[in-house]
Amino acid sequence: MKNYLKKYLVEFIGTFFLVFTVGSAVLLGGKGVIPAISIGFVLMIMVYAGGHISGGHYNPAVSLAAAIRGALPQNQIVPYWISQVLGAVVASVLLNIFVINPPYSECCEYNPIALILGEFLFTYALCYVVLQTATTKKLEGNSFFGLAIGSTVTVGAFAVGGIFCYGAFNPAVAVGLGIYQVTCWGCVLLTILANLIAAIAAAYTYRFVSETPCD
Amino acid sequence: MKNYLKKYLVEFIGTFFLVFTVGSAVLLGGKGVIPAISIGFVLMIMVYAGGHISGGHYNPAVSLAAAIRGALPQNQIVPYWISQVLGAVVASVLLNIFVINPPYSECCEYNPIALILGEFLFTYALCYVVLQTATTKKLEGNSFFGLAIGSTVTVGAFAVGGIFCYGAFNPAVAVGLGIYQVTCWGCVLLTILANLIAAIAAAYTYRFVSETPCD
Amino acid sequence: MKNYLKKYLVEFIGTFFLVFTVGSAVLLGGKGVIPAISIGFVLMIMVYAGGHISGGHYNPAVSLAAAIRGALPQNQIVPYWISQVLGAVVASVLLNIFVINPPYSECCEYNPIALILGEFLFTYALCYVVLQTATTKKLEGNSFFGLAIGSTVTVGAFAVGGIFCYGAFNPAVAVGLGIYQVTCWGCVLLTILANLIAAIAAAYTYRFVSETPCD
Amino acid sequence: MKNYLKKYLVEFIGTFFLVFTVGSAVLLGGKGVIPAISIGFVLMIMVYAGGHISGGHYNPAVSLAAAIRGALPQNQIVPYWISQVLGAVVASVLLNIFVINPPYSECCEYNPIALILGEFLFTYALCYVVLQTATTKKLEGNSFFGLAIGSTVTVGAFAVGGIFCYGAFNPAVAVGLGIYQVTCWGCVLLTILANLIAAIAAAYTYRFVSETPCD
Repeated sequence: MKNYLKKYLVEFIGTFFLVFTVGSAVLLGGKGVIPAISIGFVLMIMVYAGGHISGGHYNPAVSLAAAIRGALPQNQIVPYWISQVLGAVVASVLLNIFVINPPYSECCEYNPIALILGEFLFTYALCYVVLQTATTKKLEGNSFFGLAIGSTVTVGAFAVGGIFCYGAFNPAVAVGLGIYQVTCWGCVLLTILANLIAAIAAAYTYRFVSETPCD
Repeated sequence: MKNYLKKYLVEFIGTFFLVFTVGSAVLLGGKGVIPAISIGFVLMIMVYAGGHISGGHYNPAVSLAAAIRGALPQNQIVPYWISQVLGAVVASVLLNIFVINPPYSECCEYNPIALILGEFLFTYALCYVVLQTATTKKLEGNSFFGLAIGSTVTVGAFAVGGIFCYGAFNPAVAVGLGIYQVTCWGCVLLTILANLIAAIAAAYTYRFVSETPCD
Repeated sequence: MKNYLKKYLVEFIGTFFLVFTVGSAVLLGGKGVIPAISIGFVLMIMVYAGGHISGGHYNPAVSLAAAIRGALPQNQIVPYWISQVLGAVVASVLLNIFVINPPYSECCEYNPIALILGEFLFTYALCYVVLQTATTKKLEGNSFFGLAIGSTVTVGAFAVGGIFCYGAFNPAVAVGLGIYQVTCWGCVLLTILANLIAAIAAAYTYRFVSETPCD
Repeated sequence: MKNYLKKYLVEFIGTFFLVFTVGSAVLLGGKGVIPAISIGFVLMIMVYAGGHISGGHYNPAVSLAAAIRGALPQNQIVPYWISQVLGAVVASVLLNIFVINPPYSECCEYNPIALILGEFLFTYALCYVVLQTATTKKLEGNSFFGLAIGSTVTVGAFAVGGIFCYGAFNPAVAVGLGIYQVTCWGCVLLTILANLIAAIAAAYTYRFVSETPCD
């Protein structure tokens, strides 16, 4: 039991810092290089710090992909999701206390098809990179998994963030966007839907390209 | 057979994300730090994710260099090229659907000799870095190959991109530039030619500086 | 004895370059990407260079956390602190000689609660990342500890630096801020206090999530 | 003999790309983030690509420090220096052909004492980081040496480049600055002198903090 509590605490801490940084550096710091670099770096450091304990997901879509791939017991999906969403809620509430006027956008800035496409593509890339670099036996002990995983979010933020969609690639971050009132809850749900479908697609891609009978 | 299909799918996925990011982040996001960082990071993440399956080339010039060096069976050059170009075509067509007014440049922005020199130099550097860091026995199991390979494209984009040439360093990216109508097909062919010659030069450099009789 | 002198010299050198770079790149180079990247990179290179000798703390809060975790003998806390503060003082005095008009800010730019919160959060993250990536047996021999540690400071500088607080996350850097007259000594003390409390909190978090009976 | 020719060619290639990128990205691309990132990345990729063959110095000061530390045979200092300076000359002449109006600065932009101090400090940091991360037995097989070495130059460019000095930290780069007519040859010589003294100081620091009787 205590071992599971450790994992949940690690997921809570990591998602807290991820969403706090997204909120502070991104929403206060404007668009451009800083938000994209910040998101990638904060994910990277938390993946390196907690990967050996909880897997370092900090993202319900990644936990879903990991469960389909067999890297997370299926009965752990819900407690992982709860820990991650709790971290996101605490971070965004805390920011709301200290930030008097959060930026506000009408719902919805983006074409819904573009939003779904953008969120799908880079959540797919993120889950694909996580499964390949952090759960492949052949690559065990590598030192690049955190750099690759964090940088995927940076690339997504540059490639589709602000053009196709909000660039969440993560249902917990999407919940944070709702609490910040950056967007309406309809867009949040659309983002979450795209994220989860991408996770499933990436997990089956992984199973096709990586699993071998004797694996 | 199925093992080869896996490799082709990995090359398709990686080149798709590479060309999609080049098109979206670079062509929409303007010049400066963001395009160069994006290209380097997207190549890095895909090299880390797929390197252990297909070699992680995502670039016909790199596949040619790998074949000359003996790291890719010669009968795999053509199917690798097809997978890579297919990924580039799908990515650029998809972007064309969602981007109404792609930027358009007269053919040709650059002095042809400067274009060939710029593309030659950094495709040479790219193939040299790939062969050294990802195919040298002595460095097997290193965790830096993806960082080195991705960063080479970032350096090239800073050093010659927009000054000497378009900064493709990759025939599949050059095809994407043609489909986006960033340049005319004459310049695309010139770029591809410079890329392939550089690959051959880098492969023979590698064979001179790295191969030992008992290797 | 000589082995201890080596450690102190390594801590002195690393903190010197850290505080010199903070002072020069940050205070002269203004806000934005450059300061945050500089601080992260200089910490990273010094952690990689000296980590195997002294642990590569360069930060009294990190030394405190390392001692609580059992990675630094308790009788070494004070000499480590002295070496670090000496490095900070020499660096800031040297800069003061060459920089005629250091920027001057009234005491205090920030809400004290926000300052304490910002300094607490990312000093906590820093100590948590240091203990996880650099002192966990399971991760021994990894190559990412320096990247993760340095990037944590970069993330903190983006997330709370200039918004909540000065972004020191380090009592030795805070002393440098006082010598530069960037802020008054009251704010320096508040920063140091938040840093040390965060170190204690991170060390106990580490002990809860990472220590196992047979570790 | 042929083995030595390989090393010289690797040093020539690496220094060529280093000085070409300094000249192109830095002198054409202006000040700010791009030059500092470019220099760090190009050094990093060449260190990763050629480190296992020649040591990956690309810098006469680093070769001197390596020789004092015992990582380079003393009779190799001169041929290494020749290979490096040749690479620098070819790169800068090539750029001069394609760049009609190189920027021109009066001699000398900087206070000579500040120039010597800036060049000394970060050439010292560079040689210290090279010796620690790339020649220490305890760290053999690490994957971070190139990242640490390249980033040191980036940090130096941010911390003292353009403030105290030109930010060469490398006699071969200094020669390139002379050929570009960025500065006069008097400043080039001052830079080279500061670089070589720093190399000697760093090598003796290394010998004090790192060498053990049984090493």
